[in-house]
Amino acid sequence: MKEKKTLILVTNDDGIEAHGIRILIDIARLYGEVIVVAPDSPQSAKSHSITQNIPISFREIKLENQYREYSCSGTPVDCVKLAVHEILERKPDLILSGINHGLNTSISVLYSGTMGAAIEGSLNSIRSIGFSAENYLPDADFSYTVPYIKKIIEDVMQNGLPEGVSLNVNIPENPKGMVLCRSAHGKWKEKFIDAKNPHGRKVFWISGKFIDLEPDSEDTDIFLINKGYASIVPTKANFNDIDSLKELKFRKLYQ
Amino acid sequence: MKEKKTLILVTNDDGIEAHGIRILIDIARLYGEVIVVAPDSPQSAKSHSITQNIPISFREIKLENQYREYSCSGTPVDCVKLAVHEILERKPDLILSGINHGLNTSISVLYSGTMGAAIEGSLNSIRSIGFSAENYLPDADFSYTVPYIKKIIEDVMQNGLPEGVSLNVNIPENPKGMVLCRSAHGKWKEKFIDAKNPHGRKVFWISGKFIDLEPDSEDTDIFLINKGYASIVPTKANFNDIDSLKELKFRKLYQ
Repeated sequence: MKEKKTLILVTNDDGIEAHGIRILIDIARLYGEVIVVAPDSPQSAKSHSITQNIPISFREIKLENQYREYSCSGTPVDCVKLAVHEILERKPDLILSGINHGLNTSISVLYSGTMGAAIEGSLNSIRSIGFSAENYLPDADFSYTVPYIKKIIEDVMQNGLPEGVSLNVNIPENPKGMVLCRSAHGKWKEKFIDAKNPHGRKVFWISGKFIDLEPDSEDTDIFLINKGYASIVPTKANFNDIDSLKELKFRKLYQ
Repeated sequence: MKEKKTLILVTNDDGIEAHGIRILIDIARLYGEVIVVAPDSPQSAKSHSITQNIPISFREIKLENQYREYSCSGTPVDCVKLAVHEILERKPDLILSGINHGLNTSISVLYSGTMGAAIEGSLNSIRSIGFSAENYLPDADFSYTVPYIKKIIEDVMQNGLPEGVSLNVNIPENPKGMVLCRSAHGKWKEKFIDAKNPHGRKVFWISGKFIDLEPDSEDTDIFLINKGYASIVPTKANFNDIDSLKELKFRKLYQ
C-alpha cells in the first residue's frame, strides 16, 4: 500500500497527554507511518518560541511497527526542529499539529503554539496543518471533527500546498461544512486577574476578550465560524509591511 | 518642556540586567518619563509567547521622579501587556525594546522576543521600535549605536508610524549610515549540539546557521548590513497568504 510509506509527524501545544492529540494520532495512523514528538507538558500560547538558554531533551514513550512516540521538554517549535533534524531518519511528508483545545482564529495565530509548529514545518518546506476545535474541556468530544480532518489530510496528501504555506483549520462544534477564507483583523483586549500566591505576593493571571475589528466582513474566519462553518486559512508568516516602506521612504530621513 | 511629558516604556528580551537595555534606558530618559518593565531573566527567542498556565508577577526595582523600573517574571510580550494594562496609568507614547545582544534580521523576527514586544506594542496602536546590535558579548560596547537610536526615536516621536507598524532596527558595528528596507527571505538551518547532563541523560542545545535565500537581492536587511549599513524594517505581523487562498479556491474541494 502506497499510503503506508507516508511519514507523518504529529505534535501539538497542549502536551502529549492531551485528548486532542490522541484523536489526531488515531486519524494520522490511517494514512501512514506516524511519529509523535510532542511537549511533555502544556505549552499553550508559546507562539514561535524556541528554547535557547537551557538544553532540551526527549524521551521514547512508545515504539511499535510504523508508530513511535516521543515526549520532548521543549516548545512546539522545538518539537518540530528536534524531530526533523535529530529524531527522524528522513524529512516527514506531512506535519499535523493539534487538535488544539480551543480555536486559533484571527490574531490568535500569532500567539498559538499549535500554529507555531505548523508554520515551522512550512518553513522547512513540509506540508503542515494546524487543527483547532471549539472546546476547551480536557475531555472534549472531538469526534465531530474527524471527517473534516480526514478530508483535509487526503486533499493535502494528494494535491500538496503552495511552498511555505501551512493551513490553519478551526472547527466549531458540529459544523455545517468548511470554507477556505482569510483570518479576520482582530485583537485581544487584555484583562489581568490578580490573586495572592501562598506567600502573600500579588500575582496576575492573563485573561482577555477577543475583539473582531472587522465584524461586517463576510470573508473572514471569525464570520464563517460564527455562521457555523469550519474555517481553513492558508497561512504564511510575513513581517514585511511594504506599504509602510513606501510611505516612510518619502520622509527622506534615512539615507 | 513638552518632551518631558512623553511616556516611554522600555523593555527587552535579554532581561532587565542586560547591558543593552541599560544603554536604551539612558537614551530614553533624554526624551521623557521612562517606565521600564522587563523580564527578570533572559527571555531570548521567546517570540510572541505569553504565560498562560502559571501566574506572572512583577517587582518594583526603582522609583524616582520621572523614572520607574519593574522586573517581571514573564516573557517580553507579557511585560508589554502587564505594563500597558496593569502598571501604567496611561497608554505609553512610545515603546522601545532592546538593545538586543545580537541581530534580528530576516526570519529571526519570527523567533525574537525583542521584536515580539515591539509587535505587541504596535497591536495596541503604540509607536514601537525594536533595536538589535551586532554583538553578543554581555559587555558589548554599544556606544556607536547611540546617535542612530536617537535619530530614529526623534523621527518617530515627531512623525509617528503607520497604524499597526513597528520598526525593526538592526545595527552592525560602526555603521556607515542607516537604510529603510525590507527583511530578506531566509531560514535557519538547525544543528543540535548534544551533551550529557550530570545525570547521564542526553540533552540537546539548539544551534544553527542562517541561510539567506535571496543573496542577490540588494534591497534586503541582510544585504545592507553586509554592506555596513544599519537596517530599518517597517514590521507588521501578517499570517494571511492571499495568493494561496486564490490558488486553493480553484480546487473546489471545500464548500
